[in-house]
This record gives sequence, C-alpha cells and structure tokens, in this order.
Amino acid sequence: MEVQWRVERLHSRYAACIDDDALESWPEFFTLDACRYEIIPRENVERGLPLALMFCTSRGMLVDRIVSLREANIYPQRWYRHIISNVLIQSVDADGLQVQSNYVVLQTRRTGQTEIFSAGKYVDRIVLHKGELKFAEKRVVVDTHRVDTLLVAPI
Amino acid sequence: MEVQWRVERLHSRYAACIDDDALESWPEFFTLDACRYEIIPRENVERGLPLALMFCTSRGMLVDRIVSLREANIYPQRWYRHIISNVLIQSVDADGLQVQSNYVVLQTRRTGQTEIFSAGKYVDRIVLHKGELKFAEKRVVVDTHRVDTLLVAPI
Amino acid sequence: MEVQWRVERLHSRYAACIDDDALESWPEFFTLDACRYEIIPRENVERGLPLALMFCTSRGMLVDRIVSLREANIYPQRWYRHIISNVLIQSVDADGLQVQSNYVVLQTRRTGQTEIFSAGKYVDRIVLHKGELKFAEKRVVVDTHRVDTLLVAPI
Repeated sequence: MEVQWRVERLHSRYAACIDDDALESWPEFFTLDACRYEIIPRENVERGLPLALMFCTSRGMLVDRIVSLREANIYPQRWYRHIISNVLIQSVDADGLQVQSNYVVLQTRRTGQTEIFSAGKYVDRIVLHKGELKFAEKRVVVDTHRVDTLLVAPI
Repeated sequence: MEVQWRVERLHSRYAACIDDDALESWPEFFTLDACRYEIIPRENVERGLPLALMFCTSRGMLVDRIVSLREANIYPQRWYRHIISNVLIQSVDADGLQVQSNYVVLQTRRTGQTEIFSAGKYVDRIVLHKGELKFAEKRVVVDTHRVDTLLVAPI
Repeated sequence: MEVQWRVERLHSRYAACIDDDALESWPEFFTLDACRYEIIPRENVERGLPLALMFCTSRGMLVDRIVSLREANIYPQRWYRHIISNVLIQSVDADGLQVQSNYVVLQTRRTGQTEIFSAGKYVDRIVLHKGELKFAEKRVVVDTHRVDTLLVAPI
C-alpha cells in the first residue's frame, strides 16, 4: 500500500513536470545509468515490430531532446495536460517494480480549444535509487497514431 | 484506507483487462452467482425508466456476450482505453461495499484518431469472495447516448 | 498516506456533487469564513494578469452563484463528468495543505455527444475544520479558453 502511494506520487510529479513546462527537470525522473524511454505505437507492439517513435537509452539523450525542443520553440505553442489513472503494480522484486498505467494527454492550442493529443498506457520499470523512485524504463505505448514526434514534448 | 486501495486495484485490473483485449477474463471480475451487469443511459435513470442498453444477470450471460463479440469480429477493429477516477466508497456493510466512480473510455480506430467513446459513472456493489473482491453488481450509467451496443466491448 | 487518502476522498466527493447536479451542496465544500474560489485562464496566470473568469470570496457568493444558475436553467441542459487525477500534496503545515491536481471535465449535451468542456489544474489550499477537510482556496487554472462562464456550473 505504501508502495502504491509512492508510485502514484511519482506519476503525479512526472505529470506536473511536463504540464507545467518544467521540461529541464524531466530527465531527472529517470535513472542516471542506462535508463530507457520509448514511445511506441500499439500497433507495432502487437505486431512484434520494434519500431519506436522516440527511443532514448541514456539520460544524456533525454537532455538532448529537451534542448532541441527548446531551440525549436521559443515559447510553448501549446499546453499539455496529463490524466494518468489506474496505476497498477504488476510485480515487485529485489530489482524494482513493474508498473502499468493508463493515460490521456490533452492538448490546448493557443486558439483555446482542448483536444485529445495522445491516449495509451505506460509500461514502467521503477527502481529505488538513494531513497527516491526513478524510472529505469518507461515505455509509452500509444493508441493514437498521428503523433507529431519531431518537436513534441515528452509524453 | 486499505479497502480503498483494494477497490482501486480491482478497478485498475478491470480496466487493463478490457483495454488489453483480454475479454475472455472479463466475466471473472463478477461473482459466480447472480451477478448483475447493466449499461443504462443516464436519462433513463433520471426518468425512472428501467430500459438498459445491456443487461446481464449471470456470469453465463457475460461469457455469451464475449463469445458473440469474438464471432462478429475476427480481430478488434478499435482499441479502448479506460480512465477510471474518483473511486468513492459510499458505504461498507457486512454484505459488501457500495462504490461509485467516474470513467471515460477513449476509442482509437485503426485510422489512428482517438475520440471519446463513452463517459459516465460506475455504480458498483462489490463483495469479498474467497479473499478476492468481485463485482456483485456493476451499473454503468452512461452520459453519452450514441453507444453502438450491438458489437461493442464491455465498458 | 492517510492525508493523501483523505484529500482524494474530498476530491471524489466534490466531483460527485457537481456531476450528480447536487449543486446546492457545493458551497459546503468550502470554509465558511473567507473562502476563495476562482476560475482563471492559464494564460492570465502565466502573464501575471489577475483577471479571473469567476471570482468568489465568500460562501455567500458561492450560494448566489448556484441560485443564479438554477434560476436561469429550469433543468440542466447538459451533464458534466469530472475526471480528477494526479492529486499531489505539495506541502503540509500547521495551517493546512497545499494541493495540486489535474482535471478534465466532459460535457454531454442532450443530443448525446460527449466532448471536452474544460481541462486544467486545481491549485487548492485545504484546511481541517471540525474534523472535515474543506477548501479554503480553490484556484481553477483552465487551459481551455472558450468557457461560457455566464451560466456555467462550477468546475
């Protein structure tokens, strides 16, 4: 139960970080060594195709991603809002936790209309590092295809 | 508090079952004897009309439903994604729990667009059976009218 | 952890109150003295503009709001459905709790279509009054601009 609470808190802080556009802090949610962040279409997962929309295997790559985003956008052109729900711990072992959750990210453009940007699930491997939970792996399995990944904020 | 945690975990497993298209396991979330699953428009509830869009009163009927679905669809034509929130235990007694929650189900067609499929609330009676929580009654009160119930997955 | 549970329960009851159209009970979620309820566009917050879409500084003003709503609408023209997620306690002190959460409110018109009415975040100051949690301040920061505030239900 306490683990559940801590994992949900991690997710809430993660959501707040992106939604408040504090993207420079986003890489800190991941382990320093050998983390893995992937955005992959559900269709590819079901067909066994490894092709991801975004694939980072180190914290440095996550940092680079944010730097590119910032260079391409002087100020954010749109706002994101994460709704993360149904956080389900699937297994716990000495190495960490396997956790799955559902999400929908809403997007509001400067015109003021809010629409669904992406829906899907997170499949996460979470580890404890110096008393803090970190994502060792975060796999974003997106139901929604039409994701403009070139200049997009992390999901 | 522990009850809250267990009830939320039940909801998360329920959501994952449908969203992962593991529908054959869906009837197992219900009690074996005399369970009740109903999808009813909010308008009918407010007007006191009993007319439901779907109404099952045994686990066998739930199983039949899934069999029909599978026969009609060789493979799933769309993906669902449940966001279940605000799980509120309303009462606890010797027979079980009365629980209400809000949901939205998002649907992604193979074209890749995600849209709102159904929003509403669950009104559940949950009982403990051999150490596991099961739905004795699940009433899905849908705000959204235009639900194609003929071949639709459970909500 | 117990605080988290109690705060989430407050949010769930708040959501149920509005969604079940029990608006006459809505003011009771706030402290009797000097409460503050505000709906403000995110753009104004980011630009440091204080201009709010709705601004109430007493429970009496909240009551007035509901009375006006009821007078303007004989019966509700639309249904609302709150999904409140990622409830994050940011600080706890002797005076109360500072809490942030994400929300999306879905709206179903009598035609039966469900759409996104408003997305954003709640920034709340919550206090304990006679054993019950109450909102001393609730600031609704809306991403979505096009909010018809004249006759709108509270968010």
